Amino acid sequence: MTTTRAEAAATEGREAAALLERTRSTVDPQLRTCVESLPGSLRRIALYHFGWERADGTPATGQAGKAIRPALVLAAAQALGGDPGRAVRAAAAVELAHNFTLLHDDVIDEDPTRRNRPTAWTVFGVPAAIVTGDAMCALALRMLAEDPHPAAARASARLAACVVELCAGQQSDCEFERRGPLDVSLEECLAMAEAKTGALLGCACALGALYAGAEEDEVAAMDAFGREAGLAFQLIDDLIGIWGDPSHTGKPAGADLVAHKKSLPVVAALTSGTEAAAELAALYAGPLDGAAVRRAADAVDRAGGRDWAQGHAADRMATAVQHLARAVPDLGAAGDLLSLAEFVTRRTR
Amino acid sequence: MTTTRAEAAATEGREAAALLERTRSTVDPQLRTCVESLPGSLRRIALYHFGWERADGTPATGQAGKAIRPALVLAAAQALGGDPGRAVRAAAAVELAHNFTLLHDDVIDEDPTRRNRPTAWTVFGVPAAIVTGDAMCALALRMLAEDPHPAAARASARLAACVVELCAGQQSDCEFERRGPLDVSLEECLAMAEAKTGALLGCACALGALYAGAEEDEVAAMDAFGREAGLAFQLIDDLIGIWGDPSHTGKPAGADLVAHKKSLPVVAALTSGTEAAAELAALYAGPLDGAAVRRAADAVDRAGGRDWAQGHAADRMATAVQHLARAVPDLGAAGDLLSLAEFVTRRTR
Repeated sequence: MTTTRAEAAATEGREAAALLERTRSTVDPQLRTCVESLPGSLRRIALYHFGWERADGTPATGQAGKAIRPALVLAAAQALGGDPGRAVRAAAAVELAHNFTLLHDDVIDEDPTRRNRPTAWTVFGVPAAIVTGDAMCALALRMLAEDPHPAAARASARLAACVVELCAGQQSDCEFERRGPLDVSLEECLAMAEAKTGALLGCACALGALYAGAEEDEVAAMDAFGREAGLAFQLIDDLIGIWGDPSHTGKPAGADLVAHKKSLPVVAALTSGTEAAAELAALYAGPLDGAAVRRAADAVDRAGGRDWAQGHAADRMATAVQHLARAVPDLGAAGDLLSLAEFVTRRTR
Repeated sequence: MTTTRAEAAATEGREAAALLERTRSTVDPQLRTCVESLPGSLRRIALYHFGWERADGTPATGQAGKAIRPALVLAAAQALGGDPGRAVRAAAAVELAHNFTLLHDDVIDEDPTRRNRPTAWTVFGVPAAIVTGDAMCALALRMLAEDPHPAAARASARLAACVVELCAGQQSDCEFERRGPLDVSLEECLAMAEAKTGALLGCACALGALYAGAEEDEVAAMDAFGREAGLAFQLIDDLIGIWGDPSHTGKPAGADLVAHKKSLPVVAALTSGTEAAAELAALYAGPLDGAAVRRAADAVDRAGGRDWAQGHAADRMATAVQHLARAVPDLGAAGDLLSLAEFVTRRTR
């Protein structure tokens, strides 16, 4: 009996989903204890953001995100022969740092909803969301700095450096928004995506490696794996931002186009020199409503932005696996990492 | 020949001023190298904030603040027999963390000027100021995490914990602004000031102690010294916010009253149960212009808020010195720390 590619993908998807579920059950208690240590109303705002409390402070069942980053920490530790159980604090710290950026990004982008709930700034105000994000960032770095694990100090320095890179990525993103449709190169856009998304996925893998006691070259290879997989992830996310099913994404159709986002497929299309590129640039010059959104999505497709993004995502994943093979020569030991990478780059929601 | 108290104070003031000047010349190069390591436009925004560049990116002579916190780090290290030269990185990290809070506080309070220049958010926008502050916070913690000094990891954890406390203080401050004039107790207000101001001055002293290789009880005593001195500092600052000379403060007369701030002397007055308290509460219910500001300042005075703040500042300083004597039994070795504490609580601008 042979399995089809679709069946294999479905199996892998189920495996990754189970892995993420296990990660949440392992990491969430540590993460929650940490969040609950926040003083005063910072605690309440953070618990709301994670979905563990409603705005009125009553308990909620919560949906605190997919836990991809903490899963990468644990899987990277395991792939290098470490004990994932000893890396739970690092996994929680990475997830906390990720959520600090979400809190601030929502303020900066004025996003009204996150995970199908009103964003924290809409409920508690902009100052409260800024300050709670600040506290979560410091708390993440504190968790690592206080961890007695011998790799903790290096991990803390690495996460701090990563936060600086995330900030640079977010800053570039804001700057690009203000530029004209043809004034952002694909190269700039890729560098921005690497800083904004790739860096933290790379850091998650690097922290797992550090906690497994890996050598610096293995840590660097793990970081590169996470970065490349992160860029593939971003490309797929950008495709979903244009063609994702609203019933799955919880966002209106073509949400990124409505917001005039210069996402990777859009910039690839705009810089393609095609007739469709000029059409897209003209559409991006005005407001984008229902019919115009469909025309813009079609122009991205005809200008080759969709194909390029899919192809480039595949290229990045291939490069990611090459880096992974440097860190873990027997890829059989890196099954969980590969499942996660496949999962985030195949999901269609 | 005897010197008068005024002469002694003037001498002490000159000593402290010389000490701050020396601190700047020692710490600024390290701080600047660190700030210049920030990627992309984060670097430019941070250099502007520190007064090292103008908004157009041309060099400026700069006035990057009084350097009280880094001076406390170096003086604490010296008082405990450490080499201040080895604590320069810790001093720069504390100053960087302080400036991260200033950047975000200016956004939150919508302050248009800082150090007689337009605030960063008015020049570069709110998103840029938020993200640059985030990067500066992470960079401060990274500096410590990467420092090879044996105390660096503990120092990094301590600074991260301090940032969480600063955030809690800022959050309380924002919450108090929204409450009615009689709905904030003096106790709550003191706890807020300890978190918002005392914590970082305490942390600066604690980091100096850690870098001198001090034991945990000495570190704790140094922290307590800085906290108490910090609270005295805040009380004096609050008095200046009401009675400071505009030609010295660079702010309009009674600036804190105009802004309806619930500063410590104001809350002491409001909660005094006096006739002047009721008068002040009535004034705080409406807009405060020229004549009303003078009446409000007079009401704070008659309600005892001014005397209480001066007396309480003196009490806190006395407590601070007791804590200092626990860490440094021969107070002669702590001359710089005492000069700094006297300086910040005697300044009349």
